Amino acid sequence: MNKKNVLVAQSGGPSSAINATLAGVIEQALISGKVDKVYGARHGIKGVLNDWIIDAGAPMRSPRALLSLIHTPASALGTCRHKLKNEDADPDSYKAIFERFAQYNIGYFIYIGGNDSADTTNKLSKYAAANGIDVKIMGAPKTIDNDLYGMDHSPGYGSAAKYIATTFSEIWCDARVYDIPTVTIVETMGRHVGWLCAASAVARKTGDAPHLIYLPEIPFDDNKFLEDVKEQLARHPAVVVAISEGIKRADGGYVCEDESNVKVDAFGHKHMGGACRVLESIIANNIDCKIRSIELSLLQRCAGHLASSVDLAESKALGAMAMSKALAGVTGEIPVLNRVSDDPYLVEYSTVPANTIANMEKAVPREWINERGNFVTEDFIRYVTPLLGGPFGSDISNGYPAHFSF
Amino acid sequence: MNKKNVLVAQSGGPSSAINATLAGVIEQALISGKVDKVYGARHGIKGVLNDWIIDAGAPMRSPRALLSLIHTPASALGTCRHKLKNEDADPDSYKAIFERFAQYNIGYFIYIGGNDSADTTNKLSKYAAANGIDVKIMGAPKTIDNDLYGMDHSPGYGSAAKYIATTFSEIWCDARVYDIPTVTIVETMGRHVGWLCAASAVARKTGDAPHLIYLPEIPFDDNKFLEDVKEQLARHPAVVVAISEGIKRADGGYVCEDESNVKVDAFGHKHMGGACRVLESIIANNIDCKIRSIELSLLQRCAGHLASSVDLAESKALGAMAMSKALAGVTGEIPVLNRVSDDPYLVEYSTVPANTIANMEKAVPREWINERGNFVTEDFIRYVTPLLGGPFGSDISNGYPAHFSF
Repeated sequence: MNKKNVLVAQSGGPSSAINATLAGVIEQALISGKVDKVYGARHGIKGVLNDWIIDAGAPMRSPRALLSLIHTPASALGTCRHKLKNEDADPDSYKAIFERFAQYNIGYFIYIGGNDSADTTNKLSKYAAANGIDVKIMGAPKTIDNDLYGMDHSPGYGSAAKYIATTFSEIWCDARVYDIPTVTIVETMGRHVGWLCAASAVARKTGDAPHLIYLPEIPFDDNKFLEDVKEQLARHPAVVVAISEGIKRADGGYVCEDESNVKVDAFGHKHMGGACRVLESIIANNIDCKIRSIELSLLQRCAGHLASSVDLAESKALGAMAMSKALAGVTGEIPVLNRVSDDPYLVEYSTVPANTIANMEKAVPREWINERGNFVTEDFIRYVTPLLGGPFGSDISNGYPAHFSF
Repeated sequence: MNKKNVLVAQSGGPSSAINATLAGVIEQALISGKVDKVYGARHGIKGVLNDWIIDAGAPMRSPRALLSLIHTPASALGTCRHKLKNEDADPDSYKAIFERFAQYNIGYFIYIGGNDSADTTNKLSKYAAANGIDVKIMGAPKTIDNDLYGMDHSPGYGSAAKYIATTFSEIWCDARVYDIPTVTIVETMGRHVGWLCAASAVARKTGDAPHLIYLPEIPFDDNKFLEDVKEQLARHPAVVVAISEGIKRADGGYVCEDESNVKVDAFGHKHMGGACRVLESIIANNIDCKIRSIELSLLQRCAGHLASSVDLAESKALGAMAMSKALAGVTGEIPVLNRVSDDPYLVEYSTVPANTIANMEKAVPREWINERGNFVTEDFIRYVTPLLGGPFGSDISNGYPAHFSF
């Protein structure tokens, strides 16, 4: 019997761990002995539609290249934000995708991504089943936003959280060097949910910042915000405020979309500053102090040099599991991990049907945010801390290497 | 004879290496056997004037605390931007400073900072000499801007350069993941000189970004900029542009001060977005592509986790040398380092009179910028590369530790 080939692709926003998942998929395929070639599609499902197919397995026969891939941030195959319509609305795309699979003798398609990719995994696997096509289609989860249902946390989140916690601890060193009242507003990603911004609270382990944290889960109130900042300034000369890009007011309007913060270009595209610019104006018009606003921007999702070892290890394992399950005949599912205990931090892996995590968003639970809505609780800190990991490949505690033994 | 005490203070903008210099000063004082106490003034010369004096030596008797200080970014003693006037304009400040020295039995004052601090060192040492006061006053150099005269490079620059090069290499991984034309503009610090921005060119060793670099040394021309970006976009879908915050047009006006980029608050303070916002608008109004702009902001000067080992070692040595020379009776001088060779990278230490580096700014030489004024030359890359160092305390080459031997 001829061996089939594998096709793997990446979708959605980049992260520092999505290439670890890719490495897990490819390595598992290579060691299985059950597949011939491992192809990669550039730019996700768009690359499948457009025949942007490369041999992704060949370079990974170098163990050093595989290690390098694990530590390379963003999507090494490129990505897309292409949402596959339902079959009845766009039958041609489905036909084209499965023709491409046939052209490359694909027996297994692994799609690494967030909830849109889970939706694509679900739709393609249903289509294959309905049409008697023998291609196993599996997803593998990733998103720095940590908004995927059905799992303790999303691969990619731990590394972004580590970057954010590290950066806040360093900003705290810098923000307090002058003896004048200063407010530093730092904006993280997180359009709909506040997991990333909440991770800034870890910096409180080694410093006083951030003093205030505002998440999209709690309606943002300009007056309460001013009260909070004034109260903090009365206690410390330097106040650091963490905000999610997606904070919105009680009427549902995004703070970043305030009229003064939006420009329209010659081509009709909107250009917005961050929500931090709006908050900077609110403070500047009401409190006489030095103000800085900082958008962490892309850096939080591509700072590979600060990737969490735990995140990389979990991400690679989930990629390997997606491949391994596909080879075992499973289709339309996504591997997930759930936490068994916090201390020691232990997880277990399983798979769930792709449609159970498609098109849903998991918010920070209300009970992990304080009553006033301006900080997170100890329970959240306990949740996030193990995800940050240490330097990859070594586990230093108390100044000497903590070697593993059974 | 009673032992005298030391007073040390920090001034100007924070860096990732200024605390290594502080550690060098304190350790040298502690091991000399010639001083009693090592005091620190909080917030620079303002702390001397206001009696914000602490015992900075006592906690440094813990070697672990000393190591921690070396790796802590920003100014552990706090800083100020207080410029000491000439004696005839402000005799009271001089009297107050030397009364404070007498109050604490200070025999040695070490002032760590940039060219304003060198000016203060110069003025105070002249005043002491003119008035027969036996206090040795030495400076120690630092500035991430790398604009100090009289030395190969400024302590603090190498760490900021390492952060910038690392970040550009990661932004390049992220900026190119989509298959649509994208321009990413990344703004570094550097109000008057382009050393920091130029360091982005190191990222070209492992990737294609940045494609264009604009420094304050070359007048910025909107039309040439648009031509450059269009030419790059015709060759690559993702273009990354590095700019200094201080780029200015031929008439001397800062790009960041364009009318549309400045808001005035209720207290009359100006609030400006970065120059990258202005460039974003220029592109948005002329080229139909995805645009992102990123200000590296404080992160480039406080990212201690990415500090250059070479920078930390040099910074500590210069602090130790300032203290050592003061103990030997030298006053009014500043230790500097100059390069003996690029490969191997070797330096030698000496001292120069503080007035030779006060109030001057060293720009990137014209011959290290290409003819078009939109990139730097190989000579600059050769200059900056050794300053980035490796991880502190280890020197890994080819995958195994390169231990030192004579």
